[in-house]
Amino acid sequence: MSGATTTRAAIIVIGNEILSGKITDSNSGFLALELRRMGVSLERIVVIPDVVAVIAATVRAAAAEFDLVFTSGGVGPTHDDLTIAGIAEAFGCPVVQHPRLRAAIERVGGDNPGAAMLKMAEVPEGAELVGDEGDIFPTVRIRNVYVLPGVPEIFEAKVRALGERFRSAPYHLRQIYVSAYETAIAEHLDATLAAFPELLLGSYPKLSHPEYKVRLTLESKDESYLDRALSDLIARMPPGFIVRIER
Amino acid sequence: MSGATTTRAAIIVIGNEILSGKITDSNSGFLALELRRMGVSLERIVVIPDVVAVIAATVRAAAAEFDLVFTSGGVGPTHDDLTIAGIAEAFGCPVVQHPRLRAAIERVGGDNPGAAMLKMAEVPEGAELVGDEGDIFPTVRIRNVYVLPGVPEIFEAKVRALGERFRSAPYHLRQIYVSAYETAIAEHLDATLAAFPELLLGSYPKLSHPEYKVRLTLESKDESYLDRALSDLIARMPPGFIVRIER
Repeated sequence: MSGATTTRAAIIVIGNEILSGKITDSNSGFLALELRRMGVSLERIVVIPDVVAVIAATVRAAAAEFDLVFTSGGVGPTHDDLTIAGIAEAFGCPVVQHPRLRAAIERVGGDNPGAAMLKMAEVPEGAELVGDEGDIFPTVRIRNVYVLPGVPEIFEAKVRALGERFRSAPYHLRQIYVSAYETAIAEHLDATLAAFPELLLGSYPKLSHPEYKVRLTLESKDESYLDRALSDLIARMPPGFIVRIER
Repeated sequence: MSGATTTRAAIIVIGNEILSGKITDSNSGFLALELRRMGVSLERIVVIPDVVAVIAATVRAAAAEFDLVFTSGGVGPTHDDLTIAGIAEAFGCPVVQHPRLRAAIERVGGDNPGAAMLKMAEVPEGAELVGDEGDIFPTVRIRNVYVLPGVPEIFEAKVRALGERFRSAPYHLRQIYVSAYETAIAEHLDATLAAFPELLLGSYPKLSHPEYKVRLTLESKDESYLDRALSDLIARMPPGFIVRIER
């Protein structure tokens, strides 16, 4: 119906610290919201350990399945920073020093900055730097994979520096707050979906909220289609069920 | 070295609402901590959309690769609750009503509770109920897959009701807080890892913390091995680098 092509994305979070519960991943949630705002459909988040073979297999599969892939974490100077090695293995290319990153490191660390500093100049061969014309927040890109760091402050700054380059047709959103339980409205949701099969319809129960029991989200890239579906669902709802509508 | 077998686990979070950024997933972080506490090695978290084929493929792959799989979300009465259908497809078995769940629903909803209520009695054929002898918080288990709901309050109650059944040898943890940057300590970490290759060693930089720049985590299921590795790393650190040690 809308005819708009949708960009499909995946996020790969690399880090034992997330899997062992030491650190809460906030990066995937931040990027999920940014991608949604730009009209990109995020369809997978995967959290994996610091293991080169696992990184390689996960990146290879995601890069083949999705239009855009973002990695988070594993790009510092220590032994557990294996993302560049994993991506290089995924694409069967060697790890090389990027001249612009090497130059930036030498400006900070002198002519002989040491192996740990130089590790941060490494990229999979063929990578380019995108997202900022200066040297502060460039992001390494190879093919459709964007390599982002795990530290949230830097992750978010880099995402912001990437700007609107992924922008596609936006999602439009309407919300209905309902005073009945999901079991009482399920048949009405089914009926609206039968009439509007392209509608993105979410039903989210909320325990012990004073105002409502279920939040319904209706979304589409086609605003006219969305508003017809909204009217359809409103008309099906029994009197008194709808607490509030957000357009 | 330690000889302890390790139970390996995966979490599959099912829900468009996480991927579109509408709801922050707290369930995987909660379960990550619980599993770590019990000595279980969580090695994958995957967030996927409400699509039967994707649920089926993801569950099938995870059930084959890991000892334990937990799903979160997609088990309510509405159109987007597709987890049971997805797991049934993963294992090639039909969806059936579980008599104990059906009886529990009839106690609440009467003899004719309606299709939406009865959807919550559905399980993949061969599933059993575990985790509680009463009817309040049983968890559906089929093979090595435990089916948990998305609502955090219920998710957490069910995880607690599952108790210590996954308990294996615990991880022991030591932490070192360091006043230097990662680039200045990377070679010492590498040297300790060369001497103690089984050590689980994490290095986590913290921006603008008043006390330290890097937190090092050392872990093992073998406490004697861990303390020898800790002594090794402490001995390698230049004077003044160590701010604090937590044993």
